[in-house]
Amino acid sequence: MPAMEHPIYLDYNGTTPLDPEVVQAMQPFWGEEFGNPSSSHAYGRRPRAAVAQARQRVADLLGCRPDEIVFTSGGTEANNHAIKGLLMADHRGGHVITSAIEHPAVLEVCLFLIRFGLELTVLPVDAAGRVDPATVTAAIRPDTRLISIMHANNEVGTLQPIAAIGAIARSHGIPFHTDAAQSVGKVAVHVDDLGVDLLSVAGHKLYAPKGIGALYVRTGVTLENFCHGAGQEGGRRAGTENVALIAALGKACEIAARGRDQHRRHMQEMRERLHQGLAGGLEGVALNGHPDRRLPNTLSLSFAGVDANRLLEALKNTIAASAGAACHADSVAISHVLAAMQVPEDRARGTVRFSVGRTTTREEIDRVLPILTEAVTRLRC
Amino acid sequence: MPAMEHPIYLDYNGTTPLDPEVVQAMQPFWGEEFGNPSSSHAYGRRPRAAVAQARQRVADLLGCRPDEIVFTSGGTEANNHAIKGLLMADHRGGHVITSAIEHPAVLEVCLFLIRFGLELTVLPVDAAGRVDPATVTAAIRPDTRLISIMHANNEVGTLQPIAAIGAIARSHGIPFHTDAAQSVGKVAVHVDDLGVDLLSVAGHKLYAPKGIGALYVRTGVTLENFCHGAGQEGGRRAGTENVALIAALGKACEIAARGRDQHRRHMQEMRERLHQGLAGGLEGVALNGHPDRRLPNTLSLSFAGVDANRLLEALKNTIAASAGAACHADSVAISHVLAAMQVPEDRARGTVRFSVGRTTTREEIDRVLPILTEAVTRLRC
Repeated sequence: MPAMEHPIYLDYNGTTPLDPEVVQAMQPFWGEEFGNPSSSHAYGRRPRAAVAQARQRVADLLGCRPDEIVFTSGGTEANNHAIKGLLMADHRGGHVITSAIEHPAVLEVCLFLIRFGLELTVLPVDAAGRVDPATVTAAIRPDTRLISIMHANNEVGTLQPIAAIGAIARSHGIPFHTDAAQSVGKVAVHVDDLGVDLLSVAGHKLYAPKGIGALYVRTGVTLENFCHGAGQEGGRRAGTENVALIAALGKACEIAARGRDQHRRHMQEMRERLHQGLAGGLEGVALNGHPDRRLPNTLSLSFAGVDANRLLEALKNTIAASAGAACHADSVAISHVLAAMQVPEDRARGTVRFSVGRTTTREEIDRVLPILTEAVTRLRC
Repeated sequence: MPAMEHPIYLDYNGTTPLDPEVVQAMQPFWGEEFGNPSSSHAYGRRPRAAVAQARQRVADLLGCRPDEIVFTSGGTEANNHAIKGLLMADHRGGHVITSAIEHPAVLEVCLFLIRFGLELTVLPVDAAGRVDPATVTAAIRPDTRLISIMHANNEVGTLQPIAAIGAIARSHGIPFHTDAAQSVGKVAVHVDDLGVDLLSVAGHKLYAPKGIGALYVRTGVTLENFCHGAGQEGGRRAGTENVALIAALGKACEIAARGRDQHRRHMQEMRERLHQGLAGGLEGVALNGHPDRRLPNTLSLSFAGVDANRLLEALKNTIAASAGAACHADSVAISHVLAAMQVPEDRARGTVRFSVGRTTTREEIDRVLPILTEAVTRLRC
């Protein structure tokens, strides 16, 4: 296909294309299997079975029980459900620990809850974007009711020391939530290995559609509902089940479980090829995020002396990637993630997030490399 | 197709099959138009345009401005958003007026808010399931902050005097919400004619998928967000846009606007054929709900001396309809709607809700009639 129409997609952290098997998994529910899973008549049977199968598949990927999975409308709802569900069931106020590099779907929920008496500690990160577990311990108060630290950062890919923080949370008896929107399907995400009580999944980062997600809720953790109404999802999430997209998420999790090692190796190979090609051909290319403890697909690079938005605008017919946080294209402010990592402003302005995926090819990388190298060189003149 | 596999579907109020044009409208977004509408690169362009087009189509159907439409994950979220968004922005408590026949997605939200200091007046209905506007006036207090009365009831189809209640609400300066999940696409739903400030739409009652809906918010009405996070939907509903299902809802609204009179006439003809056929062949058949002020597709009938669940079980290979409220198949209690209408318990137990749709055929009705008549007669022996 001509480059004019289809720039090479290097923005898989923004959203992923759908896996063809996932598209296939939805098909019956657009046609004759349109029934409502709550119906007691025949039309409810297969939709109900599909929801149950999908729940099992999500649980299998995360290493939990199916009754610990609640389907949501996406990662944002999962985060809202986890945090509000834990903190809004009463008027006790209390204290929450989170980090400065969380997604707005965590930070904005916490800021909203301040109006209900919540007190918030926002932990700093180091230059690689990592939370130091010792800062978590130091922040714990007698009234701390929740710790919410993301598994992997969307902009720089840094993986947090979730297992260490989980052990701290458990030793203090504090519920621990992690937003795993970016990590599920890229690295192993096992709720017991991570030691989490609540974990958010976003379908559209996982080759499933936008509009579907899941929340893992460890048995014994009591949450108030977020969406109130009829008794769907075992009484935990009201609203007629989004059957087709639930089936899609289940299939995406099954594919992720099946192909995890292969997908990781492939993404890492593509990313390293891109990184080495750029660093080999250009001076002044700096990596943001942790060099090793990082998603296998994410490459945040700062090009000294280049405005990333100008660079991407110049290459818009060739390459699709993000400057700053991808979710907020209207905003030109330095991303809060880079700011929290104390990346200097001029370096932050030269930062491009490349994120590769399962379907990224060697040919795509090799096409991108000379074009990017040339454009960076030209913009520096 | 053999009756064993595909019973005749008479449960369109439970959920609808998808319109083939709606399925078609989603297709691009399962494939190459998978981009995130928030992306500033080329992949965001068509998804963003599709969301804008869908917003215009929903607005056109409801007679409002596109910027008064917020997409949600369904009718339940729309109701949660409207009611919580209006009442949870502060700690003022206050008073809400609703009715005894609302869907759980309204009633349960109100019951949850009682914990936050809300006081609730639940208005009665008459034997036809109508709220008397005079009872609304009588219930208004100085601290009344919201009136929420559904447009059409899901079980008996009764249409409420929304315009009269809207005039009362407006004259007192009280925001007025209506859950129009069942009425949109069946009767005219125009926000100015109805005099509502907030109106909930559910895609899957409208030949669009489960998992998508919309909330109309009149310009000037200030709502707190329900889903907090990034700035999608003009900052009013966080979460990456469910592009495909939003496009589907837009298409469904466009079809509904285009075919409204024809659809209404067809549904009414099918329903009357079913009603007259049953009433002509059986004694002891009573209609629930208002005889005229009723959805054109809904037929709630009580068969004297018959247990509706046994009747539907006996006919499960032939007819798919609902006993009591369709959304809660596990529950055998008399529906709260029939209870509020003071339908006697034995009559309530004999109640079947038939709901026809655009795709119901005369042949289907004619096949159903003798089977139903025979089964009712047999069960009475």
